[in-house]
Amino acid sequence: MPHRLQHTVTVSSEAPANAQLNSTTAYPPTPPTDHRTLAQVHNLFITSPFSPGSPLILPNGAYVFQKLQSFLRAQYPQFGFHEVITPIIYKKSLWEKSGHWENYAEDMFSVQGRGATGQKEKAQVGEDEEFGLKPMNCPGHCLLFRDEIKSYRDLPIRYADFSALHRNEVSGSLTGLTRVRRFHQDDAHIFCRPDQILPEIEQTLKFVGMVYNTFGLGPYKLLLSTRPKDSFIGTIEEWDRAEQQLSTALDSIGSEWAINEGDGAFYGPKIDIILKDSNGKEHQTATIQLDFQLPQRFDLQYQASPEELEARTQTAMEAGLEPSLRRPVMIHRAIYGSIERFMALLIEHYAGKYPFWLSPRPATILSLNADVKVQAHIERVKAVLSGLQAPDAPISTSPSSPKPLPLSTIHLPIDVDTSDRSLGKKVAEARSKKYNHMIVVGGKEAENNAVNLKIMSQPNKAATIRVLEAALGRKVTETEISKGVTLPLDVARRYFENLANGFL
Amino acid sequence: MPHRLQHTVTVSSEAPANAQLNSTTAYPPTPPTDHRTLAQVHNLFITSPFSPGSPLILPNGAYVFQKLQSFLRAQYPQFGFHEVITPIIYKKSLWEKSGHWENYAEDMFSVQGRGATGQKEKAQVGEDEEFGLKPMNCPGHCLLFRDEIKSYRDLPIRYADFSALHRNEVSGSLTGLTRVRRFHQDDAHIFCRPDQILPEIEQTLKFVGMVYNTFGLGPYKLLLSTRPKDSFIGTIEEWDRAEQQLSTALDSIGSEWAINEGDGAFYGPKIDIILKDSNGKEHQTATIQLDFQLPQRFDLQYQASPEELEARTQTAMEAGLEPSLRRPVMIHRAIYGSIERFMALLIEHYAGKYPFWLSPRPATILSLNADVKVQAHIERVKAVLSGLQAPDAPISTSPSSPKPLPLSTIHLPIDVDTSDRSLGKKVAEARSKKYNHMIVVGGKEAENNAVNLKIMSQPNKAATIRVLEAALGRKVTETEISKGVTLPLDVARRYFENLANGFL
Repeated sequence: MPHRLQHTVTVSSEAPANAQLNSTTAYPPTPPTDHRTLAQVHNLFITSPFSPGSPLILPNGAYVFQKLQSFLRAQYPQFGFHEVITPIIYKKSLWEKSGHWENYAEDMFSVQGRGATGQKEKAQVGEDEEFGLKPMNCPGHCLLFRDEIKSYRDLPIRYADFSALHRNEVSGSLTGLTRVRRFHQDDAHIFCRPDQILPEIEQTLKFVGMVYNTFGLGPYKLLLSTRPKDSFIGTIEEWDRAEQQLSTALDSIGSEWAINEGDGAFYGPKIDIILKDSNGKEHQTATIQLDFQLPQRFDLQYQASPEELEARTQTAMEAGLEPSLRRPVMIHRAIYGSIERFMALLIEHYAGKYPFWLSPRPATILSLNADVKVQAHIERVKAVLSGLQAPDAPISTSPSSPKPLPLSTIHLPIDVDTSDRSLGKKVAEARSKKYNHMIVVGGKEAENNAVNLKIMSQPNKAATIRVLEAALGRKVTETEISKGVTLPLDVARRYFENLANGFL
Repeated sequence: MPHRLQHTVTVSSEAPANAQLNSTTAYPPTPPTDHRTLAQVHNLFITSPFSPGSPLILPNGAYVFQKLQSFLRAQYPQFGFHEVITPIIYKKSLWEKSGHWENYAEDMFSVQGRGATGQKEKAQVGEDEEFGLKPMNCPGHCLLFRDEIKSYRDLPIRYADFSALHRNEVSGSLTGLTRVRRFHQDDAHIFCRPDQILPEIEQTLKFVGMVYNTFGLGPYKLLLSTRPKDSFIGTIEEWDRAEQQLSTALDSIGSEWAINEGDGAFYGPKIDIILKDSNGKEHQTATIQLDFQLPQRFDLQYQASPEELEARTQTAMEAGLEPSLRRPVMIHRAIYGSIERFMALLIEHYAGKYPFWLSPRPATILSLNADVKVQAHIERVKAVLSGLQAPDAPISTSPSSPKPLPLSTIHLPIDVDTSDRSLGKKVAEARSKKYNHMIVVGGKEAENNAVNLKIMSQPNKAATIRVLEAALGRKVTETEISKGVTLPLDVARRYFENLANGFL
C-alpha cells in the first residue's frame, strides 16, 4: 500500500554520484514557472469547485497523460507485468480486512447507494451496506491473486493497474496536479517467493532507471528505509533477510543509495527514489515496498517448491498453513508514483518545451497564401503528417466509407493556421505556443509535394537533427536549420515517426 | 445523458435489409454459451462479494478490454474526437444543476469524506459536503466546454471519455458483464451549431458502421425515437427540425431504419442502434441523442456566426442570452455503449474464437524436445514474435540496461509450453484454449531460424491465409495448412504484424 508522499523531501545536499545526461542541471537556478501557470498557457487542465482536488484534464493534458500511460504499457511486456482492471468501490468489510478502515479512515471517502439512505422505498436486504472509494489498489489485487490456487511455478505474478484512486485531502491544501483527491498511480504489485525478491527488486530498479533516462530526468538517489524501532510485524530475522536483499539489489545497481534508519513501514522495508528536478528541488517519485502483512491478512498462499518443502521454510507468517503451502511476498511498486504529480514535475521540467514524442503540439502548418492549390496541399500535409493518410495514397476525394486505422499508427495532433494574418504574426503565435516544428506551405511546396520544416522547440536538438539527416539521407546546413529545410512529404512523415519511436 | 438499456430489446422480426458480411448468421440457432461460462474457461474476469456488480478483470480480459479501447482511440483522430479525463465524484450541487439528483436519485451512489461524518476531529468548513459518484459524463463535459468562451468557428467540439461510471443497480439483478454497477462507456459529447447536426449525425453513423464491420457484427437496424406526446422541453418547431435532420441523416446512410413514435427522451430525439447477434438475439448498443436541455442548464454559449446574426435565429432555448450569443446543441453518442456489455456480446459472438488482433491467446509455442538449442531458439522465437526483439537483433545475452520499446510496437502475448509432456497432450491443451496459432519448434527450426506454424482458431481463415501467402511470397498448399507451414522467423513476425494491422 504505497503511500503518496506529497511533500518535497530533503534528504541530503551532497552531489549525487549517478548524475545522468541532463543538460538542464547546468541552468542557473531561476525559479521555475509553476505548473498551474503553464497549464493555463498550454490548455492542459482546469479545476472546478464542483470537484475540488479532481482536475478536469483538457485534450492537451489528456494527450500527455496518455503518452505517459502508453509509454509504461509498451514497456510492461518486457518486464512481465500484466494489466488488470479492478473495482473503484469495495464494501467496508474489505477495508476492515485490509486494515484501511481502521488505519486510513480519515483519508477515505465512504460510498452508499442513495436508495440505502431511505430515499429509495424498496431497498433490497443488503443494499444498505457501506462502501469505501479505493485509496489504493492492493486489496483488489490480493482478491485476484486468491482466485486460483497458485503453484511456486506461477510466481512471480505481476499485476499492473492504472485505476483512479481517491484520498480525502483537506480542501485547503489542494493544489493543481500535485495535491489532489483523485489521481492515478502507475501501480503494480508483484507476488513472489522469498527467493525471488532480489531479482525482482533489481529488475524494478532497472525499470526505474530506463524510464527516468527516457525523460531526461535525474540525477536521483535511492533511500532504503529499514525496520521501525517499535511497531513492526514479523520476526527480526525476516526483516534482516528482506533488508539484506534490498541492499544487495541496491549495490548491484551501482547507484548512490543511503539508509533511512527505522523509517520503513510497519509491514516491511522499502526503497524510495528521490529525484532532483531541473531547479534542484527534490521529489519523492518511485517507491518499492516489501509487504509481509497483506499476504497474511488475505491468507494468500502457493504450493511450495520441492526446495522449500525440503528446507521446511515455514515461518511465523505461515502459521496455520498446511505444510505444503507458503505465503508469497508482496512488492508494491510505482515508477512515476502518481501520474498527475509526475506530469506536474514534467510540466515544470520541460517548461512547455516538451520533447516531440510527448508534445501535445508537435507541429503546426502555416499557409503562405490562400491559393486553392496551397490550401489543398495543406489538407494533404496535415493528413499525412498526422498519420491519417499514407504518403503514397491517392489524393482523397473524401471517401464515403471510412477505413479503420491500425492500432500501431503513430498519430500526431498536427495543427493548421490558414488565417489571413501575416506570416510574421502566425510565426509569432506558433512560437509562443512552443510547437516543436513549424511547417510553412506555399506554392513551391504544393507543386513539389513537399514541406518547409523548421525545428523550433525541441529539448535534444542535436539528436533531433541527426534523425532529420538520416531521414533525408544527407547533412543539413546551418542555414537550413535556422531558416527551414525543404523535405518531400513522405520524408517528413518518416522523420516524425523516427522521432516518436526514438523518444525524442 | 445516454441511458444504458440493459435489457435485450425486441423491435421487429423482419429480416433487416442491411445484412453485412457475417458468416455467423448461417449457423443453426444453437443456444450460445453464456459469457460468464466462457469467461471462466478463458480467464477473463471474476466477480467478488466485496464489490457486487464491479467485475475484477483478469489479464486476459483486460487485454481484450484495452484492444477495444485502443481501437476506438486509433480512430478518434479521423473523426475529430479529443479525449479528456474528468472527475469521478462531483458535489451534489452539480447533480442538482444537471437534474440527476432529482431524476436519477435511485441509481446514484453518494460519497462523503469519512472525516465529514464525525470520525475526523478537525474537519474543515465545507468538508461536510455530499458528493455523487458519476453515472454519466455529460455534466463534466459541460464544465469543460464552459471553461473558455467559444466562437462559432470553434465548433463542433468533440470530447471523448472512457471514465468509469457507477449506477446503483439492485444487487439481485447483477449479472457478469451485462448488468453491472461499475462500467465504462466509449462516451463522447459533440457540442455543435444547429446547422452542424446533420453532418455530425452522418459521420457518427458512418463511424458506427465502420466499427461493427470491423468486428464482423451485424446486421443492425436503426431506430429514430421522436418527441414524446406529453412531457418535452423546447418548441415543437425545434423538435421537428431536429427530427428532420436525424431522418435526413438516416436516409443518407442507406440503412434500414424505423420510427419509434414518441419514444424520444424529454430533452431531445435519439437514434438507437439495434444489433442482432449470431444467435438472432437483439441488443441495443450504440446510441446517438440530441440534447437541448443540458446546454440550457449549464448556460453553454458561443459567439454566433455572421449568418446566425443576420438571421436573428435566437430561440426560446436562448432566452436571456445577449443577441450575439447562441446555445450549442449537445449530441451524446456511444458506439460500443458500455464496453463491458459490448465485450460480453463479443465473448458470446466469438465463443472464444477471437480474431487474432483481439485475441488474448494469439499463439503458443510448443517444444518438440528439451534440447538446449531448441530451448534457446524458443526464447528467441517468443521474443521476436511478441515484439520484444527485432528479428535481426543479435542473440541477446540478457543486456544489463533495458531499452525502451517504441509505443508503435505491436505487442503480442505469445505463450510457451516447454513442459515434458507429449506433443499430443500439449497440442490438445492448445486447442482447448483456442489459441489462434500453434507454433512447433524442434531441432530443424532451431537450425534454420524458422518456425512451424499452424492456423488453429481464426474467424476469417481465407483472408488470414492470403496474409500468410503475401508475407511468404508464395501460395501455401493444403498440406501446409493442415499440418503446419515452415516460415523464417522474420516472415512469421511480419505475418503477425499484418494480421494485427488488418484487424484479422
